[in-house]
Amino acid sequence: MSIAFDLPPAARPGQPVDAIDTPSLVVDLDVFARNISRMQAAADAAGVKLRPHAKAHKCPDVSVAQIAQGAVGICCQKVSEAVPFARAGIHDIHISNELASPAKAALLAELARHARVSVCVDDVAQIDALASAASAAGSAVDVFVEIDVGQGRCGVRDASDALRLAERIANQSALTFRGLQAYHGGVQHLRGWAERRDAAARAAERTGSVIARLGAVGVRCDVVTGGGSGSVEFDLTSGVYTEIQPGSYVFMDADYGSNAYTGTLRFEHSLFIATTVMSVAAEDRVILDAGLKSMAVDSGLPWIWAEGAASTTLDYVAANDEHGIVKPRRADTPEALPALGSRVMLVPGHCDPTLNLYDEIVGVRAGVVECVWPISARGLSR
Amino acid sequence: MSIAFDLPPAARPGQPVDAIDTPSLVVDLDVFARNISRMQAAADAAGVKLRPHAKAHKCPDVSVAQIAQGAVGICCQKVSEAVPFARAGIHDIHISNELASPAKAALLAELARHARVSVCVDDVAQIDALASAASAAGSAVDVFVEIDVGQGRCGVRDASDALRLAERIANQSALTFRGLQAYHGGVQHLRGWAERRDAAARAAERTGSVIARLGAVGVRCDVVTGGGSGSVEFDLTSGVYTEIQPGSYVFMDADYGSNAYTGTLRFEHSLFIATTVMSVAAEDRVILDAGLKSMAVDSGLPWIWAEGAASTTLDYVAANDEHGIVKPRRADTPEALPALGSRVMLVPGHCDPTLNLYDEIVGVRAGVVECVWPISARGLSR
Repeated sequence: MSIAFDLPPAARPGQPVDAIDTPSLVVDLDVFARNISRMQAAADAAGVKLRPHAKAHKCPDVSVAQIAQGAVGICCQKVSEAVPFARAGIHDIHISNELASPAKAALLAELARHARVSVCVDDVAQIDALASAASAAGSAVDVFVEIDVGQGRCGVRDASDALRLAERIANQSALTFRGLQAYHGGVQHLRGWAERRDAAARAAERTGSVIARLGAVGVRCDVVTGGGSGSVEFDLTSGVYTEIQPGSYVFMDADYGSNAYTGTLRFEHSLFIATTVMSVAAEDRVILDAGLKSMAVDSGLPWIWAEGAASTTLDYVAANDEHGIVKPRRADTPEALPALGSRVMLVPGHCDPTLNLYDEIVGVRAGVVECVWPISARGLSR
Repeated sequence: MSIAFDLPPAARPGQPVDAIDTPSLVVDLDVFARNISRMQAAADAAGVKLRPHAKAHKCPDVSVAQIAQGAVGICCQKVSEAVPFARAGIHDIHISNELASPAKAALLAELARHARVSVCVDDVAQIDALASAASAAGSAVDVFVEIDVGQGRCGVRDASDALRLAERIANQSALTFRGLQAYHGGVQHLRGWAERRDAAARAAERTGSVIARLGAVGVRCDVVTGGGSGSVEFDLTSGVYTEIQPGSYVFMDADYGSNAYTGTLRFEHSLFIATTVMSVAAEDRVILDAGLKSMAVDSGLPWIWAEGAASTTLDYVAANDEHGIVKPRRADTPEALPALGSRVMLVPGHCDPTLNLYDEIVGVRAGVVECVWPISARGLSR
């Protein structure tokens, strides 16, 4: 016998923040808006286009807010991820990745009938699959050659490989060669500012040399796309990027927050996990109701956030599936532990895969819930 | 301008396995059925009830299969998680955890009007919230006192605390004291068989001593619930548990697969992530289309699965958001690397939070898709 029984929503607009059910993902809308404005102003000042990465949030409402401030479009990391954004009316989408199968190329070509779509390649077979799919769908697809500028992941290794692929693309009537993607994920998370600056400079130098080699034989790169939240201040002044792809800057996280920032372009923490103390049975710890299913821990455990900063008295020391264990930083200060039922805010270690755990973002301003945004592309990794 | 555009399903019944879009979560239905039968037979032989944990899968179809073989009901870890199971007609649900707020107690009390529901406590305030909520809803809730048997998480520390709570429960007309929950998560993942046996014995001894102390003052524990997939062979013969709560045994994962098994009760890997090689641009590696958003890495990286066993020639060495980097175990054997577009099956490091990333399980048998089961409680951590 089945029953009709609905789960109440986690939050409703107009509610006070303390009424949000936990665990929930909460965004401070004032900080969020400041982060968007700062990045847009920096890109505008450098004369570089901003195409923020939607893999960070998977939420069309966030992209709409970025485009309203001047972003030229968005990046997605998978073709399935792009679908809810296209459905929401975002009509300029770059897939900053290679497609793994002809079936995915067919989906992209179909999407290209409804939106301007571009994608990366690093192999002839990918180009041929895209050409067949776009011809069959009667659509046009813009194509970027991805070059490996030091990350050791996807991308061709040298200018001759890039040239070979660019020429292959140019020979396909349904495809247009647009330029290069040069992204170095590892640079983003180097802790020291000078260390990041130097690594970003090396990546830009490799990119510049490929651009020059292609240019020497008459192959022009109209667009050179790359960069992320950790390297953007260097990417903007590198002279090689025409477009940057940062994503995490709208939220920040404990990993990005652990980078040293010497420059003027800084972003604030806008993203939090609202949790509740569910057990105080032991003297040396309390247990929160948020664990591995409420946050990604690949880049470290979350910070406890109190009065606008990372706590200096409490640490989130371990995550189980649905439990988080919190201890006082100094064992002789158990009085620092919060009471049963009290609210604890966390800054997740890594924002992208944390957002991928939730179905919605609760937007708050001045202590009140203002909106609940669906994370429409959650789980769309195909 | 928004567009109408639907994402095709990842798999359809009747399709060959190779047609499943990737990344997808795939279950071998024959192995899955054998795991269910083995655990049920072991519980039956020991005269102990089996109440499998649904936090491992969050999928009502899995629970229905377990109950059909003799399971007495299920465990859930959060009250919201229980809702889709109750909706699917599962009417005996134990929340193996404390509730973090009076609002959650109210939801539980409402659920108790539709199903037999029990929950854990380790604080007087939780009992009072449950009593108020159940009285207001006109429902009856069974309550367990959780005792900490060594994990250092939730649960009271000694028999006198347990007695105090049991008496408080007994004084509430809407609540019934049912017994103890004694679960030691840490024991599950101890690698050595004898090490697990000894740790499980210590937890059982602590549990037995609390049962005896309560019994000495006339407080009977009708049910003693606990145990997991790593300790179940010891829990079944411990003499203290009347009911066991294993979850992962239906699937197994690389973490449980790394335990040494000397005893006769063993389970097989039934759960895989189907992935595709998306880049072969470098000679020393290939890139899969499955990373942090397709698997939980808290308990380690996945195994590559080939011909019925973990690969001895290939390693999944790093996960980015949507990329997995695979290298040959011996650097001088690049010929071991799979080709662009080929299918690679993975065994995830930790099954529970991996299932929480997907919206469905694709069930396969003899190379053909047989069913697609919704993971209805995905994301329900409230």
